[in-house]
Amino acid sequence: MNRGFLIVGNKAVTKPFSLNDLAGSAGRMDILCRFVAQALFISHGIRKNVEVYLLLLGEPKPPKAIKIVGKEVKTMAPDERNIAGLIRKALKIECNKNWKRSTSGIYISKKNLKKLLDELTNRYKIVYLKETGKDIRNFVKQIDKDCLFILGDHLGLSEEQERIVKDYASEVISVSPISLQADQCVVIVHYELDRSTI
Amino acid sequence: MNRGFLIVGNKAVTKPFSLNDLAGSAGRMDILCRFVAQALFISHGIRKNVEVYLLLLGEPKPPKAIKIVGKEVKTMAPDERNIAGLIRKALKIECNKNWKRSTSGIYISKKNLKKLLDELTNRYKIVYLKETGKDIRNFVKQIDKDCLFILGDHLGLSEEQERIVKDYASEVISVSPISLQADQCVVIVHYELDRSTI
Repeated sequence: MNRGFLIVGNKAVTKPFSLNDLAGSAGRMDILCRFVAQALFISHGIRKNVEVYLLLLGEPKPPKAIKIVGKEVKTMAPDERNIAGLIRKALKIECNKNWKRSTSGIYISKKNLKKLLDELTNRYKIVYLKETGKDIRNFVKQIDKDCLFILGDHLGLSEEQERIVKDYASEVISVSPISLQADQCVVIVHYELDRSTI
Repeated sequence: MNRGFLIVGNKAVTKPFSLNDLAGSAGRMDILCRFVAQALFISHGIRKNVEVYLLLLGEPKPPKAIKIVGKEVKTMAPDERNIAGLIRKALKIECNKNWKRSTSGIYISKKNLKKLLDELTNRYKIVYLKETGKDIRNFVKQIDKDCLFILGDHLGLSEEQERIVKDYASEVISVSPISLQADQCVVIVHYELDRSTI
């Protein structure tokens, strides 16, 4: 089964940025890079059945959405700087509401959260990951459709973003008894799905 | 309970390195940085009950061991570049067989794998993480002592390293049906321990 992951980067900049300051002037782009790495990579390889979506809402031209398709990605390493370089390259493209290809497997558009979910809801069951949700360990036992998991960055989702997500999400799921970073949640989702399906 | 994590960095350099080439000339220092991040960080905080050990075996002066004590760490962010900067600072110190403090919570010495394990076996039950081991989900139910988990980097442990580790390890444990990166294994160990103890 396919798996999708979407993170909302509230401060992630929407223009090319310095690779030497991902956590600062790039608007916590480091969080998004780790999110991509943990969604796509296993030891010595990439998960072909994964799509990653990054919603960038920082200055100067929000929103921008980036789509990364595991089965198409050719040149990516799991370190933050490498992934950041590919995001930066995509941000150099003049984009509109349709997906434009940047490098192999990486696309960019001007879609906002609602437009993204309009598109994704046809292919995925939308799952909102939140500390207060139901235990993932019960949830994975009953999955019957490809799922897309939505997470916030270090700021979480705003009330408005959460309202939109809840319009589309059929489930609110929690991955841990303690509050974790977004990329750690991704690792746990993969782990629970791997255990229940492999 | 306390938790320890040790990674063997077979190529990780033992001198100060460029922060712009962690995955290349620094000998896959990016792997060690992610390992530290996943061992120590949760959302908006550091796990105080964790110690991380990095064994650096790259040129020019192997071995060097770095110890990071969660409850003492003051200025660390989870991005690779920040952690790499702290490791680089430690590598500037002229070190010997005893731990020398570099920055808050970070120490360096010339200990090799055997000397490290001699020291750690008094405080921890030593657990070797390997794909062929027993299922962690059964293991966490019966933990009665602080555990230190040992992992290899992208190259894994050599036969000689594995022989030494097995002399000390009371358990060989597997965290997933598929082969994962070291930092992903750390996330899963924390997750299973959190679920079983919180």
